[in-house]
Amino acid sequence: MNKILVANRGEIALRIMRSAREMGIKTVAVYSEADREALHVLYADEAICIGPAPSNQSYLVGQKIIDACKVTGAEAIHPGYGFLSENAGFARLVKESGLTLIGPTPEAMEIMGNKLSAKAAALKYNIPMVPGTEEAITDVEEAKRRAVEVGFPILIKAAAGGGGKGMRVVEQAADFEEQMQLAVSEATSAFGDGSVFIERYVSSPRHIEIQVLGDTHGNIVHFFERECSIQRRHQKVIEEAPSSILTQEIRDKMGACAVDVARSVNYVGAGTVEFILDENLDFFFLEMNTRLQVEHPVTEMITGLDLVKEQIKIARGEKLSYKQEDLKINGHALELRVYAEDPQNNFLPDIGVLQTYSTPKGNGVRVDDGFKQGMEIPIYYDPMIAKLITYGKDREEAIERMIRAIDEYDITGIKTTLAFGKFVMQHNAFKEGKFDTHFVSKYFNADSLKHEDEDEALMAALIAVLSLKKPKVMQSQDQTTAISNWRKNRVKFN
Amino acid sequence: MNKILVANRGEIALRIMRSAREMGIKTVAVYSEADREALHVLYADEAICIGPAPSNQSYLVGQKIIDACKVTGAEAIHPGYGFLSENAGFARLVKESGLTLIGPTPEAMEIMGNKLSAKAAALKYNIPMVPGTEEAITDVEEAKRRAVEVGFPILIKAAAGGGGKGMRVVEQAADFEEQMQLAVSEATSAFGDGSVFIERYVSSPRHIEIQVLGDTHGNIVHFFERECSIQRRHQKVIEEAPSSILTQEIRDKMGACAVDVARSVNYVGAGTVEFILDENLDFFFLEMNTRLQVEHPVTEMITGLDLVKEQIKIARGEKLSYKQEDLKINGHALELRVYAEDPQNNFLPDIGVLQTYSTPKGNGVRVDDGFKQGMEIPIYYDPMIAKLITYGKDREEAIERMIRAIDEYDITGIKTTLAFGKFVMQHNAFKEGKFDTHFVSKYFNADSLKHEDEDEALMAALIAVLSLKKPKVMQSQDQTTAISNWRKNRVKFN
Repeated sequence: MNKILVANRGEIALRIMRSAREMGIKTVAVYSEADREALHVLYADEAICIGPAPSNQSYLVGQKIIDACKVTGAEAIHPGYGFLSENAGFARLVKESGLTLIGPTPEAMEIMGNKLSAKAAALKYNIPMVPGTEEAITDVEEAKRRAVEVGFPILIKAAAGGGGKGMRVVEQAADFEEQMQLAVSEATSAFGDGSVFIERYVSSPRHIEIQVLGDTHGNIVHFFERECSIQRRHQKVIEEAPSSILTQEIRDKMGACAVDVARSVNYVGAGTVEFILDENLDFFFLEMNTRLQVEHPVTEMITGLDLVKEQIKIARGEKLSYKQEDLKINGHALELRVYAEDPQNNFLPDIGVLQTYSTPKGNGVRVDDGFKQGMEIPIYYDPMIAKLITYGKDREEAIERMIRAIDEYDITGIKTTLAFGKFVMQHNAFKEGKFDTHFVSKYFNADSLKHEDEDEALMAALIAVLSLKKPKVMQSQDQTTAISNWRKNRVKFN
Repeated sequence: MNKILVANRGEIALRIMRSAREMGIKTVAVYSEADREALHVLYADEAICIGPAPSNQSYLVGQKIIDACKVTGAEAIHPGYGFLSENAGFARLVKESGLTLIGPTPEAMEIMGNKLSAKAAALKYNIPMVPGTEEAITDVEEAKRRAVEVGFPILIKAAAGGGGKGMRVVEQAADFEEQMQLAVSEATSAFGDGSVFIERYVSSPRHIEIQVLGDTHGNIVHFFERECSIQRRHQKVIEEAPSSILTQEIRDKMGACAVDVARSVNYVGAGTVEFILDENLDFFFLEMNTRLQVEHPVTEMITGLDLVKEQIKIARGEKLSYKQEDLKINGHALELRVYAEDPQNNFLPDIGVLQTYSTPKGNGVRVDDGFKQGMEIPIYYDPMIAKLITYGKDREEAIERMIRAIDEYDITGIKTTLAFGKFVMQHNAFKEGKFDTHFVSKYFNADSLKHEDEDEALMAALIAVLSLKKPKVMQSQDQTTAISNWRKNRVKFN
């Protein structure tokens, strides 16, 4: 494999190209017209424009990617995450074009891409599922019988539903019939289908996922867990590895289950098996993501392995060079997704030009980004600016380092989620590992960041009054003189 | 310990402050007039100007450092490396002023600061020394007798010498008398003292050093070795950990010896015991450095520990939180010192403004630096711009990553040693681990970098002809079009 085309943009395109370069493999970038000056274009050995900014006219057009391979002689395609990465149709097209997809088979994508077929595959290995009905039902009596079996609290969800519509939590049996009727009528009017599923409601869920890797020789191993419970609107914002809650026993069990799930579809490549963990540390299979995840770096930090290189080696037909028992967790890693969003304004995207952009450095700090100072965050794509990753000998050090790195990160011109990240890192519930996926809605509101803002305003006023643009330096050649840096807590390079 | 003054500048001052911040400790910077806009000044919570640019009027004036502590209320001083870091007189002054030095005792500094007393201390523990005369001699007959005992080749060196003057290598006994007479007369005319030492000449030496750490409770451990054999003019330029040549048996032996050397002076804090290793893997004590070394990051990468934090904890009187058997090597790390020097012009300093300055990023890359774009490298100090550190699961990956990182590093405005670093990384002798401290003089000359230069010139010409400032992008909304990135092998962000 001499040349790889990276069918993606931004930080993940760069991140993939870095590993390819280290392996001596040439890279081809594809880019939309909006990305013509993007870093992944400059970084690649060759670059091809594949159309206008909207993804459905460029990054999502499989045939253009194939054509770009033909033109440049690229033999393989790394799809990154998002875009075409879990598109079984594209995976087939790649295969039929005589190219190699650095990813799983179309069949594995297809099975895991559908909730029912994914569940059916996982059940072959007795993977624990959230207890409940396996088929959609409409009969209230039958539903109540099942609900009592499963135990309260219960979640009633519309079979045809999505986005929380037609979902009802029922705390006790006495309320069941009323809530069921409401759910059915809501589902009927919203989707024209009144059938529902009944399942146990996990009131304090934690999101734990297991990284797996399978080669073309039938070997599958897991790389331990990542916890991604800090979410807003079901979107992960802070991830870590290992989880602060798992015991070694549960880790081993979840790892074995994840390998089984992968085995159920003869999985090849890097994938992630997602679980929900309840208050009793019981875990249930959610789904399998058949791609490299955004949060894969935390796994790299604690295992010392480069997951993109592993993906490439697997695509070349190589055997995994380690067995499960060779793998070990070292230290702790955290990842904060730095978005161009305003945490004080309901996390609305805040697009614009990076007027200042300076990233933190030093021991245990890794920044995966796709921008530099002066660049614009395009409106067409996900507003993630960077992934800020810290590593420490333990969780406490990783958190301290994250706070230090957030303070060092200097971005002006647009609002970002950095201050939100600092809020989480400094919150006792997070520090003590006592949180679930409701953390953000439970603890965070715009006022949480007010204090910091007032400090900033005070500082700005002081600086204005004193006509200082930076720490005042009272210099003397004869004697030492002290000055106090105004930026005591939020020192940045500027 | 609430506030620490960092009595240093540049990358090491920043590096120390980062660890202090992570521990919740306030920092005070001191700076010369030449450094008023330096990053360590902006980074600190407070900053004090201590005088004009020449070090002997600022960074080397102990009393000014003490005064700066008094003014700011700093309770402890971290001296970094260089400047006052191994000055026993300063260490005493700190103590007498009621302050804490984050470093060893003045006594340990004094003993290890003198070759004879250091040797005497180490001999208490039977540490292996390069075989030879223990005292200076002048008598030719006696010298020859000792030379035969020690075995040829022999090194004759002036007792009062330095910088290679009065040094002679004698390959065989027949030549001894003539060479001895030449050495004595050379020494007499140069130093007014004709006495010499006789010792075994190690023709293919490797420089291996062991990192040690001792607490105030008598516990001393070692953190394995660093190899620093790639040197020019006796200055380390590339370091790594672990060494590619040591067996586990020799590693354990050297480690135990290093702990003994430290124990011989009841060592407290971080120190380094340097050894020379010969072709038979026999090792001999050279000296002990009683400070944090420039190259300490490679040890941090393979052990996961933060050595500055360990130093601070020791200075606070804490016990080491681990025993020797808890420490383990994980992976491999390399460090390249990036100097503002021209490798094509005998490594002469090339001072000026960093017109472009963009550092590499991504998995396994750490940059410890003290500059940003637009800053000037001052002529008053060591011309080191940065330490580029890479980490990989093994030596091969660390090397590949270093090459990738060097290619990504973008510095214009001054000449640097980056290309020299790449030359070393790509050299077979280095890749195979078959080298000694003569590597640079044996393999490197300015012509080694010519090829790269011609490529650059060709590229510049092409760009001029085509009026391109960056990769030409032949865009079309209807079809994909290939372009070739001119910078195929040396792609940089610009």
